[in-house]
Amino acid sequence: PSLSYSNSKNNARRPRVMVVRATEAAAAQAINPDIRKTEPKVVDSVVASELSKPLTPYCRCWRSGTFPLCDGSHVKHNKATGDNVGPLLLKKE
Amino acid sequence: PSLSYSNSKNNARRPRVMVVRATEAAAAQAINPDIRKTEPKVVDSVVASELSKPLTPYCRCWRSGTFPLCDGSHVKHNKATGDNVGPLLLKKE
Ligand code: FES
Ligand code: FES
Repeated sequence: PSLSYSNSKNNARRPRVMVVRATEAAAAQAINPDIRKTEPKVVDSVVASELSKPLTPYCRCWRSGTFPLCDGSHVKHNKATGDNVGPLLLKKE
Repeated sequence: PSLSYSNSKNNARRPRVMVVRATEAAAAQAINPDIRKTEPKVVDSVVASELSKPLTPYCRCWRSGTFPLCDGSHVKHNKATGDNVGPLLLKKE
């Protein structure tokens, strides 16, 4: 097919390219999508002497259905994003 | 300025629009930008009986310069992104 068009000053018919910079997008991104979003800051406390099990994993991925405990959801997050996050393990000793 | 062009089946000269869906972008985002990225999964252990101070904050924002401890960097992250994350406080009791 033949094609002809005149030059125009604003280049309106040039193909448009949008560049999204991944690093800038990451820097601006919230890491907690859902948990207790009405709280200004989600802070949790654990009293060490009250731990019931020998080992209790606490979530640091903000994807757990049992937050602040870890329910293994970090595995899905890591697979989906290439991330490498995991829980904090509290040991009673 | 005059403009004429032929129709083509692949619509190559139509203005191109790229839609970036914010929710999908967020879902695909890693939350740990820098910490121990050579490890497949960053897991830390704390033995409760070995806590030295009455209160020790542990980082859940993946921005701390003293990870796994919290150094207050969650404040900057929350301001920059509108997020609401904070540490896990371990209390010796
Ligand atoms: S579910 Fe969040 S660290 Fe395991
Ligand atoms: S520095 Fe990460 S939670 Fe405080």
